[in-house]
Amino acid sequence: MKKIKVGLLGLGVVGAELANIINSNKEDIMQKYGIEMEIGKAYVRDLHKKRNADIPFSKLTDNANEVLNDSDIICECMGGSGTEATKDYVVRCIEMTKPVIMSSKKVIALYGKDIIDLCMTKKSQLRFDATVGGGIPIAKVIKECFKGEKITKAVGILNATSNYIYSSMERKGYSFEQALKKAQDLGYAENDPSEDINGFDALYKVIVLALFAMKSWVNIKEMSTKSFSSIDIVDMKYAQDLGYKIKPLAIFQKKKDKKFVYRVGPCLIAENHIAANVINNFNIIVFEGSNSGKLGFYGQGAGSKPTASAMYDDLVSVLKTSFDYEMDLYDGCDVIHDYRDFTNSLYWRVSVDNIIGKLALICNVFAKNSVNIEKVIQKDEVNGKMDVVLLTNSVESTVIDLITHEFENNKVDVNTIIPFFND
Amino acid sequence: MKKIKVGLLGLGVVGAELANIINSNKEDIMQKYGIEMEIGKAYVRDLHKKRNADIPFSKLTDNANEVLNDSDIICECMGGSGTEATKDYVVRCIEMTKPVIMSSKKVIALYGKDIIDLCMTKKSQLRFDATVGGGIPIAKVIKECFKGEKITKAVGILNATSNYIYSSMERKGYSFEQALKKAQDLGYAENDPSEDINGFDALYKVIVLALFAMKSWVNIKEMSTKSFSSIDIVDMKYAQDLGYKIKPLAIFQKKKDKKFVYRVGPCLIAENHIAANVINNFNIIVFEGSNSGKLGFYGQGAGSKPTASAMYDDLVSVLKTSFDYEMDLYDGCDVIHDYRDFTNSLYWRVSVDNIIGKLALICNVFAKNSVNIEKVIQKDEVNGKMDVVLLTNSVESTVIDLITHEFENNKVDVNTIIPFFND
Repeated sequence: MKKIKVGLLGLGVVGAELANIINSNKEDIMQKYGIEMEIGKAYVRDLHKKRNADIPFSKLTDNANEVLNDSDIICECMGGSGTEATKDYVVRCIEMTKPVIMSSKKVIALYGKDIIDLCMTKKSQLRFDATVGGGIPIAKVIKECFKGEKITKAVGILNATSNYIYSSMERKGYSFEQALKKAQDLGYAENDPSEDINGFDALYKVIVLALFAMKSWVNIKEMSTKSFSSIDIVDMKYAQDLGYKIKPLAIFQKKKDKKFVYRVGPCLIAENHIAANVINNFNIIVFEGSNSGKLGFYGQGAGSKPTASAMYDDLVSVLKTSFDYEMDLYDGCDVIHDYRDFTNSLYWRVSVDNIIGKLALICNVFAKNSVNIEKVIQKDEVNGKMDVVLLTNSVESTVIDLITHEFENNKVDVNTIIPFFND
Repeated sequence: MKKIKVGLLGLGVVGAELANIINSNKEDIMQKYGIEMEIGKAYVRDLHKKRNADIPFSKLTDNANEVLNDSDIICECMGGSGTEATKDYVVRCIEMTKPVIMSSKKVIALYGKDIIDLCMTKKSQLRFDATVGGGIPIAKVIKECFKGEKITKAVGILNATSNYIYSSMERKGYSFEQALKKAQDLGYAENDPSEDINGFDALYKVIVLALFAMKSWVNIKEMSTKSFSSIDIVDMKYAQDLGYKIKPLAIFQKKKDKKFVYRVGPCLIAENHIAANVINNFNIIVFEGSNSGKLGFYGQGAGSKPTASAMYDDLVSVLKTSFDYEMDLYDGCDVIHDYRDFTNSLYWRVSVDNIIGKLALICNVFAKNSVNIEKVIQKDEVNGKMDVVLLTNSVESTVIDLITHEFENNKVDVNTIIPFFND
């Protein structure tokens, strides 16, 4: 009887859930694969913290190396913090050619290329289906639903926290800050919400999805996001008046010549687009495949249970393939282009003193910079200032900077600039 | 080297596509499974029709029995017509314990219980993943995405034709008939569209999905649908004024004690529900799982390519399991209940001569039958008749009949009755 010791790096909510799944499936693994699987050591930062898993105290250690040395397969459940340390543990496992199952998307997003390169050199197994999708098993869906076809484009709402905040703003009239506070109270946002709010969490997911769906590696150092917090409730209202909604979108596309185009940030989207009705903590991802056309997947974006369950599936896959080398992902692709490929139009909200000639002034600035105004709506006066909403054609960021600068010199406040997503 | 002859019943668009997939994957099957797979005989109604598959004339036959006798595995690609003959062929295959891959959902919906029972008795293999989903590989998604959890409820738009028609009515102002004509011109509706329009196609899919998702067999003889054609464009407009859309919905739920509740027909759905934004020939199905919560899948609802591809996957599964007996579906469940489980409210549109006392008359009829009116909207007069829209609580069909009868006696025309879907 073959024996396999599974080591755990981390025993938080995901690690504990995974330990329980492993324990309750021992019999099944024995019957199906003739393998006696057991949990070996588990690395924890605090030995005396109460755990939700049935693991004897003797198996806990605060020395990660003990886990690496003791185990045949290592499951990384380290969560979001200590990214570099997590990467180092994973690298050491690979160097020892011990299969690794990962859950940290940030580690893949930051160090994925090095990790995968090392796996290919060492011919060691690595799986990270659990790094993306939460309640929606996206990695599995990609493998099962797009067999033999190319995914060229994707649009999605990938961050549950920001979507919850936007939904509360839109539907309950909360300010961004009020909505964030509410999300924190409900556990949809962390105490330090910056990774979610600033779009990094969504960006990590884009990078992992680019690997799974497009077999492309893109370099996070060349990427940036637009913070989701730049939106005011009044923008939501004005967008609605135009037949649009503002959503925290991630859009990415693999073009010819290994060009990868993306955008992560707030976007105006037609109110009758399917993503416009995805609210609260729900996520959606719509892929465009060469044969299937558009295929969309919708579900709750987070949860320790689905993550642990995805890790367990990865573990079983490693058992089934009898430790064979297997890594067909990855196709170097690090050219990143302008997001204007997705959009023809920009929404601007500026405010200006309510004096004669104010609209002429604004329109002149756009005209001088060869920007076409498609629509102007003068809104109500608040404290002597007028909100003016303009829709223009999409322009390069250098032109945006020029216009913004000129507005500043003329006492026009530029409050919001958001692109439209044209599907 | 093991040899496998695959026989084809039918060589229409799906059969031809499948033949091509089989031919182009011979090498792969040889390498992976050590099996020499080849297409044996193919049953066609017309020997001399031009086919889109590279199959020598000598392999064609207009005698289905030749296919059954000659083949090791049989693929049924008979399409919608000749349901009873198709069933007979399938039954004969099973009696010979030859594995069958099916594509006809109607045959499963009508005769599934007998077919499955026979498979269990004969310990013969049967697969029918291709019977449902079109572009969305629903059977695979259910197997992969809901491992070890119960699906209790589902709501979806399962018929592309009716959804295309409703979208054209809503967005382009076409009448039902105009929209149907347009759908036929574009190939989204058949020359005889009755199976789609009357909801039978969606009902067959409900029955197959109940098998896959809920492991339940429900008897079509105890079921009925509401025709999608009962909707007028003015209903769409009134629904929109109320913040709703009218959609061709299929809703089903497995309750305790093997009770299966369902409804197939037009429904009012909140305009911010995800299904409300699923338009044209797109389908959606949102399942509710015990662990995952709501998981939705969205894509184009039809296509010979995805169907053939699903059949090929089934074929490979049969090869992989080395002809083992495998049929864990099916859990007798044929009690069907009132759809009022999904709805608290009904939409009524009646019209009446524009005379004094007309509203009192209408309201009295409802009051007399103990039906609560939640909202009344008197619409414009057209040719001396007033449209009146009422929202009431949901009532039993016998009460609906009573009210309708009484309205008739009082010269009130009942134009439309549609339930709201309360998610």
